[in-house]
Amino acid sequence: MAPAAVSPVSPPSPTLDNTSKLTKAGTATILEKTISNGPKVADLEASKLTFTPNLNPKPVPAPNSAEVWSQNYTTDHMLTVRWTEKNGWEAPEIRPYGPLSIMPTASVLHYATECFEGMKAYRGDDGKVRLFRPDRNARRFLQSATRISLPGFPPEEFLKLLKKFVGVEAPKWISEPGSFIYIRPTMIATAPALGVQRPKEALMYIMMVMFPSLDDPLCKPPMPAPSAASASNGVAEAKPAAPPKGMRLLASKHDMIRAWPGGFGNAKVGANYGPSLVAQGEARARGYDQILWLFGEECFVTEAGGSNFFVLWKDKTTGRKEMVTAPLGDGVILEGVTRASVLDLVRSGRLGEDVDVTERRFTMQEVIEAQTEGRLIEAFGAGTAFFIAPVQDIHFRGLDLVLPLGQTEGKQGDEFAMKVKRALKDIMYGQLEDDWGVVVEETRERTYDA
Amino acid sequence: MAPAAVSPVSPPSPTLDNTSKLTKAGTATILEKTISNGPKVADLEASKLTFTPNLNPKPVPAPNSAEVWSQNYTTDHMLTVRWTEKNGWEAPEIRPYGPLSIMPTASVLHYATECFEGMKAYRGDDGKVRLFRPDRNARRFLQSATRISLPGFPPEEFLKLLKKFVGVEAPKWISEPGSFIYIRPTMIATAPALGVQRPKEALMYIMMVMFPSLDDPLCKPPMPAPSAASASNGVAEAKPAAPPKGMRLLASKHDMIRAWPGGFGNAKVGANYGPSLVAQGEARARGYDQILWLFGEECFVTEAGGSNFFVLWKDKTTGRKEMVTAPLGDGVILEGVTRASVLDLVRSGRLGEDVDVTERRFTMQEVIEAQTEGRLIEAFGAGTAFFIAPVQDIHFRGLDLVLPLGQTEGKQGDEFAMKVKRALKDIMYGQLEDDWGVVVEETRERTYDA
Repeated sequence: MAPAAVSPVSPPSPTLDNTSKLTKAGTATILEKTISNGPKVADLEASKLTFTPNLNPKPVPAPNSAEVWSQNYTTDHMLTVRWTEKNGWEAPEIRPYGPLSIMPTASVLHYATECFEGMKAYRGDDGKVRLFRPDRNARRFLQSATRISLPGFPPEEFLKLLKKFVGVEAPKWISEPGSFIYIRPTMIATAPALGVQRPKEALMYIMMVMFPSLDDPLCKPPMPAPSAASASNGVAEAKPAAPPKGMRLLASKHDMIRAWPGGFGNAKVGANYGPSLVAQGEARARGYDQILWLFGEECFVTEAGGSNFFVLWKDKTTGRKEMVTAPLGDGVILEGVTRASVLDLVRSGRLGEDVDVTERRFTMQEVIEAQTEGRLIEAFGAGTAFFIAPVQDIHFRGLDLVLPLGQTEGKQGDEFAMKVKRALKDIMYGQLEDDWGVVVEETRERTYDA
Repeated sequence: MAPAAVSPVSPPSPTLDNTSKLTKAGTATILEKTISNGPKVADLEASKLTFTPNLNPKPVPAPNSAEVWSQNYTTDHMLTVRWTEKNGWEAPEIRPYGPLSIMPTASVLHYATECFEGMKAYRGDDGKVRLFRPDRNARRFLQSATRISLPGFPPEEFLKLLKKFVGVEAPKWISEPGSFIYIRPTMIATAPALGVQRPKEALMYIMMVMFPSLDDPLCKPPMPAPSAASASNGVAEAKPAAPPKGMRLLASKHDMIRAWPGGFGNAKVGANYGPSLVAQGEARARGYDQILWLFGEECFVTEAGGSNFFVLWKDKTTGRKEMVTAPLGDGVILEGVTRASVLDLVRSGRLGEDVDVTERRFTMQEVIEAQTEGRLIEAFGAGTAFFIAPVQDIHFRGLDLVLPLGQTEGKQGDEFAMKVKRALKDIMYGQLEDDWGVVVEETRERTYDA
């Protein structure tokens, strides 16, 4: 069952340029470079997938239960694929979810040779299960893997595997229309050797984890909040006990920088997350949900925790409504799938809003100026875990910037964000047929009782 | 056996300042902050150590054998200590070396919540086993752990554990005078939950791994070199097949930087290593041993792979010999134990060399200028794995800077580096009694035959 083609050569670095790489052309470039650098890279082949059913299936927890808030309640299975430099990608396997046996010398435990993706599967009101633009996640997964020296793979094959896995788990785990589940593709370097070198063995795995609706302010943990919690690039936790109207952001300080040009802030690698926990813990302790990551002396606004960050204001000169977000070219922000979709949606005019859309560097000073001049309309985070999360206030060096949402008595000041959210949700849950919503074929017959 | 004091609060960020933190005072500050932030942090207690002998001991491989070059040949045991937010540090255990069972959702596999140390134990010509300034590694281990939101611990207790573990393994594994073994303390976040948050469970473990003498040019792998190899902050691999006289360095490009101010380049966390593998792989493919990491438009010289980097030149103005290395204040380089020792040694005058010692930012342009003006004497890397590694040449953007060592017929142009190395080695192997060399008491009676 060994793959037909194997490669003794690890994939090279992806091209670094200023444009989106989550396009088919961009991915083709990465793969081409991978291939041209040595013997053909070992193939990941979805057709080799095997299935070992879990004979001890778990119950599905109730929506919003403590189990769901734990963010550790996985489905019955996981999908795993082993890769070795010698034999390439082995046969993918859906098997019972359980612990991994990892040698203490494994690269992933020392050198952060790891990357992941965050996505969701949605059960539509029409009963169908959909993924949202999963091709973008597949391509970003490849991009992150190559950035951290993990093996490349054809994103189409990954996507086939992902769909099969979702197809197996969806009937039981997201049986209710309107429900969703979080999907976590991961890749780690497993070769046991302390040399700091390109991984010689790796494991790709996919899990599905029950998640609360973090974007719903009415959705709260059922008990004393399960400890400090947060979100970061597609990952989320509980909101604080107080009933906030929106996300509360603490701007990062000069001495704590998330990413840097020439670094890896644009790749979904573990190395972007662990080092952010100290700042994030401080934010939580001070009652904020997330860090608003700034960059440089100019205080460029980059990301909000793990979400991309959008501002809606009236342009200083024209007075026209403008939606602004940080650009990709600097390489310091993640190219979020939700980010791209918000941009595409508003630009397309499908939202029915007359709003200019701009991707450019912008500073905290500009946001403050818009606020003091009464031009600031809304701000929101956009990501998989928190989805579209309106911002209530931002603390920046002794300054509390309270957005319209935070100033109103009821829930106002998030109309634009809610319109964006509704439009995306309509696609995710099939109320609007769109090729962003990719229907997954389900495997109804199972070899065990669940 | 639960620790007396437990803490629901993870340790806060260490103080970021411009001075060495590997002092007792610096560590006291970190610990004090840890404690003042909540209930007393759970204690790591060496006195609770238990020992479960390995009943299937392995043979000791021959020096310089393929097993040694694999950098995965560990001793019979490992030392492990579990930590949970709820119960604090549990009883440390020396037990048979073997795989760890880690849940696929564990934080370390997604968010790089991991840190490590690199040190060695040496069997002296007097038959005694020594560690080299292990207190500094212990304090840096604490510093790295807190930077990545892992739990704090009293470094003295860690040191006691380390010594006991070395004392158990040394009689068998470094029985010959002049031999050494590599020690890898590690800490990883093990709590199974996808929330991006301060770890709620962690595992500290220590392994000992057979290592080749990477600083000895005559020490080569016994077979076709075991693949691309390298070193990074206390980690090393095979040298290329050609017999180099010293380390060959490829200067990093603008689009690939290792660390940045406000980042974590001064902590021994996994996040500094994985992202460097792409550049390092390119260096290896081009016949270089390591990347010489530059920073900024000015091309400040920071580190050489995983070693700190030193230049010896004649000062432009005074004509006096000066040893220069990058400063700690920027937070972009690791505060190497070998680095500190080289500085201390030369400053103390013990080397008998009339050399000025300077820690400051310096640029590639300055190095090039010194070269073209005939003032460049030597350059060398300093770290645990490669020890003192003289540099042969540096490639910087189309320029080959061949150092005196690289220009000579025989082996000349590394006299200063070799003098430094000899002085440190004398302490490590007990030819010179010095409090930098800490003797470890060995446990001669073992409960199994080896």
